[in-house]
Amino acid sequence: MPDHVFDEAMRLTRLEGGEQGSTWQGGTHPAYWNMVGPFGGYTAAILMQALMTDPVRQGTPVSLSVTYAAPIREGAYTVQTRLVSATRSTQHWSVQLVQGETVAVNAIALLAQRRPVWGTRDIAMPDVPPAASLPRLELDPKRPAWVQRYAFFPQRGGFDAVARGEPTTDTRTEQWVRDEPPRPLDFAALASICDVFFPRIFLHRGSFVPAGTVALTIHFHADEAALAAVGETPVLAVAKGVNYSGGFFDQEAHIWGADGTLLAASQQMVWYKE
Amino acid sequence: MPDHVFDEAMRLTRLEGGEQGSTWQGGTHPAYWNMVGPFGGYTAAILMQALMTDPVRQGTPVSLSVTYAAPIREGAYTVQTRLVSATRSTQHWSVQLVQGETVAVNAIALLAQRRPVWGTRDIAMPDVPPAASLPRLELDPKRPAWVQRYAFFPQRGGFDAVARGEPTTDTRTEQWVRDEPPRPLDFAALASICDVFFPRIFLHRGSFVPAGTVALTIHFHADEAALAAVGETPVLAVAKGVNYSGGFFDQEAHIWGADGTLLAASQQMVWYKE
Repeated sequence: MPDHVFDEAMRLTRLEGGEQGSTWQGGTHPAYWNMVGPFGGYTAAILMQALMTDPVRQGTPVSLSVTYAAPIREGAYTVQTRLVSATRSTQHWSVQLVQGETVAVNAIALLAQRRPVWGTRDIAMPDVPPAASLPRLELDPKRPAWVQRYAFFPQRGGFDAVARGEPTTDTRTEQWVRDEPPRPLDFAALASICDVFFPRIFLHRGSFVPAGTVALTIHFHADEAALAAVGETPVLAVAKGVNYSGGFFDQEAHIWGADGTLLAASQQMVWYKE
Repeated sequence: MPDHVFDEAMRLTRLEGGEQGSTWQGGTHPAYWNMVGPFGGYTAAILMQALMTDPVRQGTPVSLSVTYAAPIREGAYTVQTRLVSATRSTQHWSVQLVQGETVAVNAIALLAQRRPVWGTRDIAMPDVPPAASLPRLELDPKRPAWVQRYAFFPQRGGFDAVARGEPTTDTRTEQWVRDEPPRPLDFAALASICDVFFPRIFLHRGSFVPAGTVALTIHFHADEAALAAVGETPVLAVAKGVNYSGGFFDQEAHIWGADGTLLAASQQMVWYKE
């Protein structure tokens, strides 16, 4: 069986490395291309992939914060993982994606050993019908390549209102999402899914507006068992806009497993042009 | 007039530097001490202070993401600001706080020129009476030093329920906060205020639980004019818990000016012990 296209896109070759991290060689993949560069979720995912593959990696991700510094050109890049601090149960990493002399992506991550302790949740999972009961979004083939890599089952706040040119002040999106074709969820794929929402400003304007994510933070709640429980099934991806001023707006998002487990919470800042 | 204690605590000496950033010498300040190290807000603030003071800094903060890697001991530290990428309108920085051989804090930041463009807001400011109409929180002198550096006017979700040993599942806090004594708000002080909330798990447990912030991201919406509009007046600091599992929980927070301007949105992950 050939590799899933996501696995192809996540392929990294370790050029060198040691106790303090590694240098990885990778390359952009046309299947995850956006309009002028890779889909931002792909970029977050490749950083996570480098971290999870690093021979000195211990624990699973607690947080990943990424800033998108420069356009990523089609072709080769290196990912540099650097372990800057560690305890028995935590690892603090700096990660950069570099093309030539340019640091295109600047990131930090925290990995840790999770412990089976008391837990609870202060927010409720939105009451959304199961993915299987919702029609799958038919994608306009003119939309960017990466969009075709996902199956979307929108309940609310889909792209259709934007496509019809209808502005709305309701910027909440609730949609089931899975890789297309289906693929077992891992931390890289979860990082990518945190960025599958089109820019919230499109909803306000009822149209396309030049916009791009400049900063993305993901707080991971899923452990390996939670990912295994999801497997290849769709996850519920929920986002809403917050504040738009000075050319930047932010978005808060939550990614849920069908069983009600909160897998990740994320927050991003998006540059926009009026 | 003597310096405000916050300015004293933010004092940094530039040891060396150039086009790519600087090395700064600072030291912990007893006035912002928490139980076993500096208050996490102080730490975020000193990184912001180094960035804002850097001679090559351009623009104002859009995002700051911090991971707390190791305990900060009382005494001297260095802050290293490194400009890793820049465009005409953005600067991407890596920042570390170092003691001896230990990277105690690992951070990235994005600064940018803001532009006067169309804006809006998707969330409503909570309907809270003005600070002047609420009683100021009387602080138990046994509480950590940093708590005394703020004047709190809690409307909801104060520490009193915890002090009385009453557990609650409502982890929302709404409180006005200002520096004590009053001081004009700047980006460093705003960063600090994003971390003034006691750990949400105290509310669930109705008691103190060993807990500490491990990752903090702040998305700044305020520009210089918005800070000037706040001046020395209290800001409304709102936080709620999200998800608690595996020894980590997250919290979402918003900081509002009295005029309804959203100044900052932040998200943090907190380690906790059962």
